[in-house]
Amino acid sequence: MYEKEVKEKTSQILPKVVGWRRHFHEYPEVSGEEKETSLYIQQVLTELGIPFETGFFGTAVLGTIKGDLPGKTVALRADMDALPVTELTGLPFASKNKGVMHACGHDGHMSILLGAAAVLQSMKSQLHGTVKLVFQPAEEEASIGGGRHIAASGKLDDIEEIYGLHVWPELPVGQVGLKKGNLMAASDRFYVHVKGKSTHAAQPHNGTDALVAAAHFIIDVQTLISREMNPMENVVCTIGLMNAGTRYNVGVEDAYLEGTVRTYTPALRDKMEQRLGELLKGLDYTFGTHSELNYVRGHSATINTPEKIDFLDEVAKTYIGKEHITHPEFPSMCAEDFSYYLEKFPGAFLWLGTGKEGTPALHNASFALDESILPLGIIMEAGACLETLAKE
Amino acid sequence: MYEKEVKEKTSQILPKVVGWRRHFHEYPEVSGEEKETSLYIQQVLTELGIPFETGFFGTAVLGTIKGDLPGKTVALRADMDALPVTELTGLPFASKNKGVMHACGHDGHMSILLGAAAVLQSMKSQLHGTVKLVFQPAEEEASIGGGRHIAASGKLDDIEEIYGLHVWPELPVGQVGLKKGNLMAASDRFYVHVKGKSTHAAQPHNGTDALVAAAHFIIDVQTLISREMNPMENVVCTIGLMNAGTRYNVGVEDAYLEGTVRTYTPALRDKMEQRLGELLKGLDYTFGTHSELNYVRGHSATINTPEKIDFLDEVAKTYIGKEHITHPEFPSMCAEDFSYYLEKFPGAFLWLGTGKEGTPALHNASFALDESILPLGIIMEAGACLETLAKE
Amino acid sequence: MYEKEVKEKTSQILPKVVGWRRHFHEYPEVSGEEKETSLYIQQVLTELGIPFETGFFGTAVLGTIKGDLPGKTVALRADMDALPVTELTGLPFASKNKGVMHACGHDGHMSILLGAAAVLQSMKSQLHGTVKLVFQPAEEEASIGGGRHIAASGKLDDIEEIYGLHVWPELPVGQVGLKKGNLMAASDRFYVHVKGKSTHAAQPHNGTDALVAAAHFIIDVQTLISREMNPMENVVCTIGLMNAGTRYNVGVEDAYLEGTVRTYTPALRDKMEQRLGELLKGLDYTFGTHSELNYVRGHSATINTPEKIDFLDEVAKTYIGKEHITHPEFPSMCAEDFSYYLEKFPGAFLWLGTGKEGTPALHNASFALDESILPLGIIMEAGACLETLAKE
Amino acid sequence: MYEKEVKEKTSQILPKVVGWRRHFHEYPEVSGEEKETSLYIQQVLTELGIPFETGFFGTAVLGTIKGDLPGKTVALRADMDALPVTELTGLPFASKNKGVMHACGHDGHMSILLGAAAVLQSMKSQLHGTVKLVFQPAEEEASIGGGRHIAASGKLDDIEEIYGLHVWPELPVGQVGLKKGNLMAASDRFYVHVKGKSTHAAQPHNGTDALVAAAHFIIDVQTLISREMNPMENVVCTIGLMNAGTRYNVGVEDAYLEGTVRTYTPALRDKMEQRLGELLKGLDYTFGTHSELNYVRGHSATINTPEKIDFLDEVAKTYIGKEHITHPEFPSMCAEDFSYYLEKFPGAFLWLGTGKEGTPALHNASFALDESILPLGIIMEAGACLETLAKE
Repeated sequence: MYEKEVKEKTSQILPKVVGWRRHFHEYPEVSGEEKETSLYIQQVLTELGIPFETGFFGTAVLGTIKGDLPGKTVALRADMDALPVTELTGLPFASKNKGVMHACGHDGHMSILLGAAAVLQSMKSQLHGTVKLVFQPAEEEASIGGGRHIAASGKLDDIEEIYGLHVWPELPVGQVGLKKGNLMAASDRFYVHVKGKSTHAAQPHNGTDALVAAAHFIIDVQTLISREMNPMENVVCTIGLMNAGTRYNVGVEDAYLEGTVRTYTPALRDKMEQRLGELLKGLDYTFGTHSELNYVRGHSATINTPEKIDFLDEVAKTYIGKEHITHPEFPSMCAEDFSYYLEKFPGAFLWLGTGKEGTPALHNASFALDESILPLGIIMEAGACLETLAKE
Repeated sequence: MYEKEVKEKTSQILPKVVGWRRHFHEYPEVSGEEKETSLYIQQVLTELGIPFETGFFGTAVLGTIKGDLPGKTVALRADMDALPVTELTGLPFASKNKGVMHACGHDGHMSILLGAAAVLQSMKSQLHGTVKLVFQPAEEEASIGGGRHIAASGKLDDIEEIYGLHVWPELPVGQVGLKKGNLMAASDRFYVHVKGKSTHAAQPHNGTDALVAAAHFIIDVQTLISREMNPMENVVCTIGLMNAGTRYNVGVEDAYLEGTVRTYTPALRDKMEQRLGELLKGLDYTFGTHSELNYVRGHSATINTPEKIDFLDEVAKTYIGKEHITHPEFPSMCAEDFSYYLEKFPGAFLWLGTGKEGTPALHNASFALDESILPLGIIMEAGACLETLAKE
Repeated sequence: MYEKEVKEKTSQILPKVVGWRRHFHEYPEVSGEEKETSLYIQQVLTELGIPFETGFFGTAVLGTIKGDLPGKTVALRADMDALPVTELTGLPFASKNKGVMHACGHDGHMSILLGAAAVLQSMKSQLHGTVKLVFQPAEEEASIGGGRHIAASGKLDDIEEIYGLHVWPELPVGQVGLKKGNLMAASDRFYVHVKGKSTHAAQPHNGTDALVAAAHFIIDVQTLISREMNPMENVVCTIGLMNAGTRYNVGVEDAYLEGTVRTYTPALRDKMEQRLGELLKGLDYTFGTHSELNYVRGHSATINTPEKIDFLDEVAKTYIGKEHITHPEFPSMCAEDFSYYLEKFPGAFLWLGTGKEGTPALHNASFALDESILPLGIIMEAGACLETLAKE
Repeated sequence: MYEKEVKEKTSQILPKVVGWRRHFHEYPEVSGEEKETSLYIQQVLTELGIPFETGFFGTAVLGTIKGDLPGKTVALRADMDALPVTELTGLPFASKNKGVMHACGHDGHMSILLGAAAVLQSMKSQLHGTVKLVFQPAEEEASIGGGRHIAASGKLDDIEEIYGLHVWPELPVGQVGLKKGNLMAASDRFYVHVKGKSTHAAQPHNGTDALVAAAHFIIDVQTLISREMNPMENVVCTIGLMNAGTRYNVGVEDAYLEGTVRTYTPALRDKMEQRLGELLKGLDYTFGTHSELNYVRGHSATINTPEKIDFLDEVAKTYIGKEHITHPEFPSMCAEDFSYYLEKFPGAFLWLGTGKEGTPALHNASFALDESILPLGIIMEAGACLETLAKE
């Protein structure tokens, strides 16, 4: 209904959106420390004349666009945090914060949400009801739990729907991915400490080698995945960190590992926690080590409300055209704390294709989103709000 | 000949020796940074009236005791450096330098050498010739190479023999170990970098997991040792360090390992270097990683001059009694840079037993030498000098 | 339309069907050697007055029931071969052929097909067209290829549809599983020979240990599955056999392994073949072995014609009731050479639940089907033929 | 004293000795089944006019040469059995018994003993006392225990010394190896059964994979050797056999392994037995298998009487020349049931060099002894008897 105007306004705001995105990219901040990012968002919202609230959770910013026409309330959400990755893109606006990088595209998410906000604000007179703009910190760090806390904060208790998106390298540039039901996995984090007994490197028999034992644990985990999991179910266990030993010529006393488990069903989640513990007990029996597992449950699975995907499908057909829609066959094993919003409110999370020949995976130090996709994101977010609010 | 007097003087100086040892223990310094240790040695030598030289290599100190009677020149050597280990002994004089510890007994070696110096200095009138006192830095760090540099410095070119010792937990308290020929192994250090490709933890198939590959390398090394080495030959390969990954939920791009190889023959040393490289090439072929090996040769093997062991045997029988002598059957896989002196000069290195029920291995954070062994060390060092100089 | 009569006739024939099944179970024969089994089928068909043909492929039997009414031709198929498994069920009619067992339920399939044949034969006067009864040898042995050869034999070129079934422990007793599209995986077989160099067991360094190398290969395969496969795709690699060495005290020169790969897409099939080869090249580089891979492609994937599943759904609702129908969410990684019929003709393969608390998996030495499910199979097979032939 | 005559007689008998050796080589028989071998020995002894006894243990033959002069009794021993190895030498007199081969040189030992017997018999008039010729079955099979039973049989209770030899590829052709004390290791045999749960190959999660678990056990053993053994002590653990699974597409329920452990000290022997058991318990905990270890102690260590090596040294100097004597530095990890004789009687076992560029190890399918060494063996055996009997 509003497609022409939304597309026109998106075109107009685009140069600014690109500027915002590059600024975010240049000054990334890790989970829970998005202070400058938050101030910059507040500054742009102020420029756009959009009122906002802060101080209710960390660096979060909650903007509000109240339409001139009466109606219900819906929300759009973008995540703000970057990753502790050292950027290797070589972009002119590459990270100036050493060891920190927007390697997961949250710079794009924030600038798209600001772009959609600009479009919606400029169409206030046609807007039925209210759009809440959720800028959420700490999506990447479950122990801080941005999404979990904001969903539970009460600040969104008046919304009837919520939408969000993620740039997606596995979908080609120009495509919007809409999938009902299972979309992104539950994500848990685990910490392993394998304790051995240190010794002079030349006298292995006087110690207990925690490093070699940890290597056996790592390969045991591969067998757990390859032989004990139903090949029809989807599960991943990645160990992302290991630090062991203090010196090349001292036998290793302590090995520390950290990893993540991704699942879609509670039964499998339970089994993985149990079996990782048993693997370590078996390891201790085999090698004489003393191991500990700390298994911390993180984000639950992100499951799209089927009717809201149907609705977005209609919006997409009208606003961006059928040829830009993909219905992915498979969910992803990545996690997303948008899950907490969808446990509480109807809504949907969409994937915004940014894949081309050679695009690296998310979280890779060379990942860079294709800026030509920004308008698609803005149009989908603004269009979804305008249309759902206009319904009846 | 001088045994009564040496034992008497050793008794007298002992309280001071214990004090020196505790001071060294309390203020350990790592290889190449033994500044305070050096100053303390200089202070004690000054108190003892023994002239010394510094500035010829790092923090080294070279004292000289010139006897009143004519004769040749011999040397005694002690090593000065501590290890980057966090002490767990709970001793009242435990390390005050956080993360640094005399876990290899060099505190004992220095105080014994100072004690022997005190005895010899007080018996100058009976001393034929000259005793050089070598306080050597950086024994633990082959890249700095204390022993290598001092042996090559020219400062010892006038000596005809050299002696040294190491406290030895595998020999009981009260025993002195004397072994001809092979005593301590050649020691090499290697660095491995396994390079994979980072990816989101939930998408392992988009990356190359350097951590799991490194675990396979670690277990490959165990098979190299257990199946490719002649069980009659002595070889150790310990990996003392591994650091891999940046974050629990990012697939590992880089794994770094460091370790040491101990051997007695050049052929085996060559084979280990070659095979470690081949293991990594095989790893790369198997898992698609890109690995690098940097193999740095360290200390050569320490091989005692047989005649000097015969001589020390005689000294020991007279000075400390037959019941305190052990002739170890096997050499050790530990390395010692005393090897460089023995490549150039005749001499011998002895082991001073400090083993009791429950004594931890050298380099262990709980290692503590038994102070009751200090007199044995002093008597052997002073006695050896007096006797060899008195010969003919 | 014929449901009452079919159910009644099934009840009547049931005691005989149970007898047939127990006979088949007691005298199992491995793939390609189903001679007695074939003769027994021929004898029962003769008793039932059903003409048949043999000699066109191995031990296969092709019965024909020509209805009194005109119409098209359809086929029903059962597989005849057993497995080289030593039965452990303890049943009174357990296998009398040592080391051979109907551990995959083909005894049930044949007796159900004979039961359906009896029912159809007795309802000939109401039957429009012709039903071909395919008793197929060598389903378990892709190198003989029962299904492949019979589908290509020309004997079925006049059929318009084909149906078959498999007893299924993962579905509860009383359920019939109907699934559109992907049902059972492509199945490949591979042979690995790891060649080392034999030596006296006490001199490992003089040989190359093919057994330890093979163990490394086995664990490499687990990492291939756990880290290189997209967790959303379905793939299994099982090594079912390993024979290595000749004597406990001779170092192993040859290790032989056999296994199977299950996939659903040609790309993944290619990748698995390629990567298994690369793993062995990496192994050879690492351990000095000389390995060979022989990768033999077996059955393609079994994919049900969607419309035929819709048709069976209707049949099932009428004949056995809605409460006996399950629509499985996931396909299986097991393979089935019914795939070759479905590549050529429309049709469907259904799963007949035989699962209870504690039912072992197919191919397990303790597997035993629940005979109470036999009528369900007969009713579905007879009903499907009667109904599809009656359709105009 | 008798050297000239012994060498001359050896020359004369040599063509026959070569013939006997080739005959033995052509018709090898495995442990406990040396029937034709025994008959052949009996036939040669008969031809030589030497009386013998049989029937006291398996296929054993005990010849007796009674000298014309009074004196004590000594024994010479040769082992008779071959190995279950398929010969690959390509020799014209290669094994005619398929799958059996004299790959350990016992063909040489028997023909040398017959040669020495011929020499001694022809010098009877000069012989003081008696020489017993022990042809012993089942050296390779500890469970039959040729040496153990014959040493305990009472048949040798009147001997005062015993000698034997083994062809030795690690010593060059032309050398005789004489080593005091430790010569050959204790040898134990172990059997492992890893029990899992069978399943269809496509449903790994429904079973417990004994093959993959066994692979983990195999690599665990490598870590046991490489990290828990004192690198100065000598120990080998070789797994020589593994049979697992029944069919490529059935998940493995049972894996059977057999191997051997070689040690020199009882403490290490105990530790290996204990740790192998613990490794399997850890394996079961880790992977859910049920494993069993059967550890069977075999031959004890072969330890030469030092004085008898001194005696052989004198004999060798006179009979074959100093340049043909080697004093090996290291013992071997191979076992020998000559140990049982040396536990009961003074004596010595010598190594007869058969090494050249490219000679394969003992037990290798391509091993072939160099026939030019046969005279050295004969001269040493005959010389040792003549000289020791002539003493006093």
